[in-house]
Amino acid sequence: MPALDYPAPIRELILQMKSLPGIGQRSAERLVLWMMGRGHARAAELARALVQLEQRVGICSECGFFIERDSACGLCESDKRQKTVLCVVEQAADVLRLERSGAFSGLYHVLGGRLSPLDNITPSDLRIRELAARVPALGVEEVILALSADVEGEATSNYLADSLRPLGVKVTRLAQGMPAGGGLDHVDEMTLHHALSGRRAM
Amino acid sequence: MPALDYPAPIRELILQMKSLPGIGQRSAERLVLWMMGRGHARAAELARALVQLEQRVGICSECGFFIERDSACGLCESDKRQKTVLCVVEQAADVLRLERSGAFSGLYHVLGGRLSPLDNITPSDLRIRELAARVPALGVEEVILALSADVEGEATSNYLADSLRPLGVKVTRLAQGMPAGGGLDHVDEMTLHHALSGRRAM
Repeated sequence: MPALDYPAPIRELILQMKSLPGIGQRSAERLVLWMMGRGHARAAELARALVQLEQRVGICSECGFFIERDSACGLCESDKRQKTVLCVVEQAADVLRLERSGAFSGLYHVLGGRLSPLDNITPSDLRIRELAARVPALGVEEVILALSADVEGEATSNYLADSLRPLGVKVTRLAQGMPAGGGLDHVDEMTLHHALSGRRAM
Repeated sequence: MPALDYPAPIRELILQMKSLPGIGQRSAERLVLWMMGRGHARAAELARALVQLEQRVGICSECGFFIERDSACGLCESDKRQKTVLCVVEQAADVLRLERSGAFSGLYHVLGGRLSPLDNITPSDLRIRELAARVPALGVEEVILALSADVEGEATSNYLADSLRPLGVKVTRLAQGMPAGGGLDHVDEMTLHHALSGRRAM
C-alpha cells in the first residue's frame, strides 16, 4: 500500500506556499488546511488578488516605483513635488517608508537592489544608467543617497557618488546617528561612533 | 497631497495575505513585494495552485478526509484496510499524522473539530451523526477516539463515548504518557500523572 498523502492539488499548493520567503513546511501545511476549512472561498479570493497583481501592477519606467498599468506614476507626474531633488533608494518599499516619514517631497529613484559581488549583483543589474540619464533630463540639483547603512549599502553609495560626480550634481547621504527613542544601551558601537562624530550644536 | 500608497492591487493582496493565520502586516507586505520582485511569475503560479485547490479538491462524504473531486476516497474504498476499526480524529491533517506513524490500518472518521461552548461549537457542528450512522453500516467493532489530550478534546471524547454506548460498540482512546525521546524534565505534571497511573509490566 503506498503511503497516504494529500490529494495532488493540496500538495502542489503546499509546495508553492513553502517556496515563499519565511514560510516552511509546517506553516504552508497549516495555511492550506486553514483555507480548506474555509470552504474554498478564501483560496479563490486570494487567487483573484494574485491574478490582479499580475495583470494590473507595473513599474514606472522613470522612478521604478509601482504603478497601476496604463496610468501615470503618481510620483513622477505629480506637480506638487520638487523635481530638482532626487532620492535614491534600494527598493520600492523604501519609497513608502520615506513618504510616511513626511520628510521628503522630491522625486525618487528605485535602484532595484545594491551591489553585492557575492550574489553576483553588479552595476549593470541596478538602475544606475537610468539614474545617470534622469539627472540631466530633470535638471536635478541634488541626489540624496538613502541606501542601507551596512557594508553593501556603503559600497553602493560610494559607487554611485563616483558615477554621478562627472555630472556636476551635488550628492548627499542620510545622516547616521542615534535612532529616535533609543538610549545608549540600545545601540551598537558603530552607531555611537557615527552619532558622536556627527554631533551638532544646540 | 494624499499620502502615497501602493497601487490598489498590491494593497488588496497584502490585505488578503494578512488575513491568513500567522501572517501579519509586515510579513504580508514582504511576501507581496517579494512576488513583485519575481516578475509576477510566482504570483501567477500561486494563483493557479489556489484555483486548482478550489476546483479539484473535495471532502469524502464518508470519512471526511480530502479527495480529488470525481474520484473515490483512497481510504474508504481501499480493500487493504480493516473496516471494523474506526479511528475518530479532529481534523483531516490528523489522518496523515496517524498514517505516517504506520500504527493503524483501519478506517478514519474526521469530526471536523471538537466541542467548544466558548466558540459556539456544539455537537451538531461536528460530524457526529455521520459517525453514529457509519458504525452499524460498516459493522464497526471498535471506535478509537484519537482526539487532543486537552480539556476540550477530553470533553468531546466523553460526549462521543456516551453517544456511541447505545450502539453496543467498543470505544477506546489513545494511551496517555511520556512522549518518545523525552526525559522526565521535559514533561508537565499531568503527563507524568498519566504515565504513572497507566504504567505497564515489563
